[in-house]
Amino acid sequence: MVKFDLGGAVPFLDPAGLDYASAAAAHRALTEGLGQGADSTGWLHLPKRMTGTGLKSILSAANRIRNQSEVLVVIGIGGSCLGARAAIEAIGRKPDCPEVLFAGHTLSPRALSALVEQLGDRDFSVNIISKSGTTLEPALSFRVFKSLLEKKYGRSAARRRIYATTGADNNVLKKAADDNGYETFVIPDDVGGRYSVLSAVGLLPMAAAGIDVSAVAEHAAASFRELNLRSPENPAWQYAAARQQLYRSGRTIEILACSEPSFRYMADWWKQLFGESEGKKGVGIFPASVEYPADLHAMGQYIQEGPRTLIETVVRFADPGCRFSIPFEIGDGDGLNYLSGRDFGSVSAVVTEAARAAHTLGGVPNLAITASDMAEQGFAELVTFFELSCAISGYMLHVNPFDQPGVEAYKENMYRLLRRESDND
Amino acid sequence: MVKFDLGGAVPFLDPAGLDYASAAAAHRALTEGLGQGADSTGWLHLPKRMTGTGLKSILSAANRIRNQSEVLVVIGIGGSCLGARAAIEAIGRKPDCPEVLFAGHTLSPRALSALVEQLGDRDFSVNIISKSGTTLEPALSFRVFKSLLEKKYGRSAARRRIYATTGADNNVLKKAADDNGYETFVIPDDVGGRYSVLSAVGLLPMAAAGIDVSAVAEHAAASFRELNLRSPENPAWQYAAARQQLYRSGRTIEILACSEPSFRYMADWWKQLFGESEGKKGVGIFPASVEYPADLHAMGQYIQEGPRTLIETVVRFADPGCRFSIPFEIGDGDGLNYLSGRDFGSVSAVVTEAARAAHTLGGVPNLAITASDMAEQGFAELVTFFELSCAISGYMLHVNPFDQPGVEAYKENMYRLLRRESDND
Repeated sequence: MVKFDLGGAVPFLDPAGLDYASAAAAHRALTEGLGQGADSTGWLHLPKRMTGTGLKSILSAANRIRNQSEVLVVIGIGGSCLGARAAIEAIGRKPDCPEVLFAGHTLSPRALSALVEQLGDRDFSVNIISKSGTTLEPALSFRVFKSLLEKKYGRSAARRRIYATTGADNNVLKKAADDNGYETFVIPDDVGGRYSVLSAVGLLPMAAAGIDVSAVAEHAAASFRELNLRSPENPAWQYAAARQQLYRSGRTIEILACSEPSFRYMADWWKQLFGESEGKKGVGIFPASVEYPADLHAMGQYIQEGPRTLIETVVRFADPGCRFSIPFEIGDGDGLNYLSGRDFGSVSAVVTEAARAAHTLGGVPNLAITASDMAEQGFAELVTFFELSCAISGYMLHVNPFDQPGVEAYKENMYRLLRRESDND
Repeated sequence: MVKFDLGGAVPFLDPAGLDYASAAAAHRALTEGLGQGADSTGWLHLPKRMTGTGLKSILSAANRIRNQSEVLVVIGIGGSCLGARAAIEAIGRKPDCPEVLFAGHTLSPRALSALVEQLGDRDFSVNIISKSGTTLEPALSFRVFKSLLEKKYGRSAARRRIYATTGADNNVLKKAADDNGYETFVIPDDVGGRYSVLSAVGLLPMAAAGIDVSAVAEHAAASFRELNLRSPENPAWQYAAARQQLYRSGRTIEILACSEPSFRYMADWWKQLFGESEGKKGVGIFPASVEYPADLHAMGQYIQEGPRTLIETVVRFADPGCRFSIPFEIGDGDGLNYLSGRDFGSVSAVVTEAARAAHTLGGVPNLAITASDMAEQGFAELVTFFELSCAISGYMLHVNPFDQPGVEAYKENMYRLLRRESDND
């Protein structure tokens, strides 16, 4: 499991210590199904559930996609795309595997045109992901790419290139899949979108991109087992309890910092997980993200000297998985030969450490999370750690970390406006 | 100039009105050079300064780059890359122009390896951008790409592929450029990094990518002229005054929302502009960004029902510049044929409007900015509007919007740690 370091937050925490009693109670409520939204805690068992037949059908579909296509277009929004995108960006697509393009999260004509251009005349398959089947944005993108498939391959062959990941109930998408013979994957009823990355929602696109999803599931199962520890040594308790205590002392914004540009979508996944789980009933820490060193030259000033309302959480990787040497330069015009031959990664680590020291001294509590690597294991560690911490943190905040009642408001407006405009046509 | 709509914020503003007297005083202090950091207000005159000889040398260098290279590697960090990146992403590279890759903002070995791989064996040129010449991150990346140039073309030919944009004083980079005969562009002393996009810092990479920088400069000059209006009708006064009043009433986070994925780097540029200008002395609004509709399914819950500390500022474009029709579907399986034939852009506009209505009803004040287009004109309008608003807003907040004293803290730590490690080698 991840290593968690509270050290940089100690000067900002109550000397009486963190509220581990509440963390323990929250953890218990979660695993015993006694908390709010208990019918949405199936994600705790996904890694175990997935190993076996679940994984087998994903692997065989991924294999078929790899054989039939150079591109997989994944159509989803929110929790239906962020996890897979995070994994594929961070871990990286394997050689000879299809490129994965993401649609369904935008309605921009420019972005859609660019996507269709990027697709070009390459062979492609489509994975439509929608739990309810009725979400407008992915449904509209599905129309676009289904019609492209039909034009390219004919209606019948197109059907064999469509993979539908949806809820088990008889929704619109499930019905269309059954009517047309799309291969179907089920999003379990007891797993919400933002907790679904370790179901077919995330694993099918990941597998198509060549990521070892069996390893992801195994590492995730192992990490959940270790995180089941009932003691203040549990890093999920530490993270949740530290966040809640800092929040109560006026820390209203958490910035997730990482030095890997390919961590960007992982940060987006994290923002949804925490923002959507905690942001309700007028409470919740605002989740934001920064990339170092880039943002030290953009948001660094605010972090160092702005309002003291920030928590900085840094994600690092024990094994960077890659080296890149700083070149030697004849003449040493820039005076940096003292660094030549060193790995960029080691300089990057120094920058992160320097920022951490400066920021804590400037009044920003620092939490540090270290995952094994930017590969299957590290991804599984981070997903399980953040999911569990988020659920515990939400319970400690006395909210239901598994619902999102506020998302309906704009949808109702949207359908009303669209219907009204159409009626006026 | 941009259109600005305060309507969605009115229920959250003091009925006595906005403090236009302070906005007027701030505007006067700015243009008369009487405010803090008055020696850094040269950006107000950049568009005028650039038209003429300044632009000529940029255009001829861009032409040379286009003739000699398929890729331009721009090396910079913070204000030295965000503006050009924002423009090239939003406006788009023109056909037959070099791809522009950005380096210097990361120390990640993975990211650098990926960049070198992306570059491949294509012909390339380098634009190193560093005002002080001493910033570590771009200096190290410059070593990498200079050594690649020298390996590929030899030392002498490599020099003709390096373009240095730096301060006028005799810094390390200026000296190297003079010694080696790199073509040089000057960052004026009176223009800070985050206000430099309309100097050679931004315009040279933009011109290389085929963007009409003469049009950008002309539209920017025209917009600055219009924004010089001394009345509450001035949208920059309205934006600055609304932000400051909302901030004083407890609105501590501003989210910049846009429905165009290619606006992403523009949002990053905006975050640096406002975050670095205002975030000091313990004050300042925290700048964050969201993309719609994607984030309605990720951050939407927090926006709708989290703490009432948000301001939502939406950027729209009067001319989306592109159409994409919603396909008709036989059978209407998803029940969306009532939208078929409509442009995605019109549905996107409805979604933005639906979100705005839902969010204001949920207690989030909404500010709306409309630029002409996602092309040269709209870009110039947004840059000038945000720069002027930011300076006025900073003065209203009683901070110096042109310094960044807090950025030094991590740098000092970094150099100390790096030197120490090297001494121990």
